[in-house]
Amino acid sequence: MLLGRVTGTVVASQKEPLMDGLKLLVVRQLGVDSNETGGYVVAVDAVGAGIGEVVMYASGSSARQTQVTQNRPCDAVVMAIVDTWDVDGETVYEK
Amino acid sequence: MLLGRVTGTVVASQKEPLMDGLKLLVVRQLGVDSNETGGYVVAVDAVGAGIGEVVMYASGSSARQTQVTQNRPCDAVVMAIVDTWDVDGETVYEK
Amino acid sequence: MLLGRVTGTVVASQKEPLMDGLKLLVVRQLGVDSNETGGYVVAVDAVGAGIGEVVMYASGSSARQTQVTQNRPCDAVVMAIVDTWDVDGETVYEK
Amino acid sequence: MLLGRVTGTVVASQKEPLMDGLKLLVVRQLGVDSNETGGYVVAVDAVGAGIGEVVMYASGSSARQTQVTQNRPCDAVVMAIVDTWDVDGETVYEK
Amino acid sequence: MLLGRVTGTVVASQKEPLMDGLKLLVVRQLGVDSNETGGYVVAVDAVGAGIGEVVMYASGSSARQTQVTQNRPCDAVVMAIVDTWDVDGETVYEK
Repeated sequence: MLLGRVTGTVVASQKEPLMDGLKLLVVRQLGVDSNETGGYVVAVDAVGAGIGEVVMYASGSSARQTQVTQNRPCDAVVMAIVDTWDVDGETVYEK
Repeated sequence: MLLGRVTGTVVASQKEPLMDGLKLLVVRQLGVDSNETGGYVVAVDAVGAGIGEVVMYASGSSARQTQVTQNRPCDAVVMAIVDTWDVDGETVYEK
Repeated sequence: MLLGRVTGTVVASQKEPLMDGLKLLVVRQLGVDSNETGGYVVAVDAVGAGIGEVVMYASGSSARQTQVTQNRPCDAVVMAIVDTWDVDGETVYEK
Repeated sequence: MLLGRVTGTVVASQKEPLMDGLKLLVVRQLGVDSNETGGYVVAVDAVGAGIGEVVMYASGSSARQTQVTQNRPCDAVVMAIVDTWDVDGETVYEK
Repeated sequence: MLLGRVTGTVVASQKEPLMDGLKLLVVRQLGVDSNETGGYVVAVDAVGAGIGEVVMYASGSSARQTQVTQNRPCDAVVMAIVDTWDVDGETVYEK
């Protein structure tokens, strides 16, 4: 999994029917020291994450293993909202 | 998923029979701020996307979860046409 | 899927039995403007592609969805020979 | 698989229920000569790895093939603690 | 698949039980012209490859399609020892 910050949303009315009802989040990827890496992903929200929150997301077929994403053409899912995150004995992020 | 702009098509008459009847789009990848990243993918069209449209596509095994791509040797599918896309409180793209 | 040019072959007599009888192509990756990107992949040939031809290949589990690659330890397959390829209203490649 | 050093942990109380009870490790990726590459991954711990240990992790759907990760939205798992690691006839790392 | 040179081994006594009995090879990735790219992967040996040999390996779920890797948390497998490898009409490598 990777860490990211929810930074926006995508709205798409014309889509594959299996994507109906899913919330699409724009997630900026964070490096291990919480800096933004420049990368991003559009991920389905499985945990009710809000703009600005630091989250963890899974990619690939693993992104289809949540209740809301099963059997859907979804390759990225936000599956946790991060409380704290420690690296080398220091708290990099605290909610 | 990633965002991209449909920029062309690929025609291939000699192909694996399971790919028959699928429309192949050349999609240029877009960064989070809608700039082109230089990357691209050839994706099967599952939503009737046209040249110039901003779309969302899924990759890997998730690309086989739409009705048109099931069980086909397809690793990328355009599964939504983007209406709007917001980042950091601003509308980056509006159809 | 990505586009590439068939540029060579790999011969391997000592291999996992499930790979017997498959033709292994060295495919140089092409950018969207048909320039070589420096990347390559060794892909199983599912369409009878010849040296020099421009092809489309699928990666990952999708590479196991052709008749010749099913259930084999194959993560890349050439599944189409490209006739034409258009980008931004221009024909980038014509067979 | 890739090699990495366990460098921290992630705590997330609000998450997909299928992730309950899993320990989340921040793993810095190591190059073949044991230098840090700058990359990282958050991986589920399947072997009781501690901070500072050098481990091996699997990614993608393979990360769901351990007892603790089966059918969970997990795309990276620490599945071995490395004892030694040799390259070009020299021991790069010894526990 | 990609090409690489077997350059070392990894020993790990504390691991996921499903990995017991598998030989773990450090494989340096080779570019299309046989130069080392700097990348590497730890792959399970499915063909009895020795140090220094040029091999082909598969990644992702395809790495679980050999007899020795089935249903194991393995995302890379050496599944062929390369005899020869031609690019642009020249033999880049011969065993």
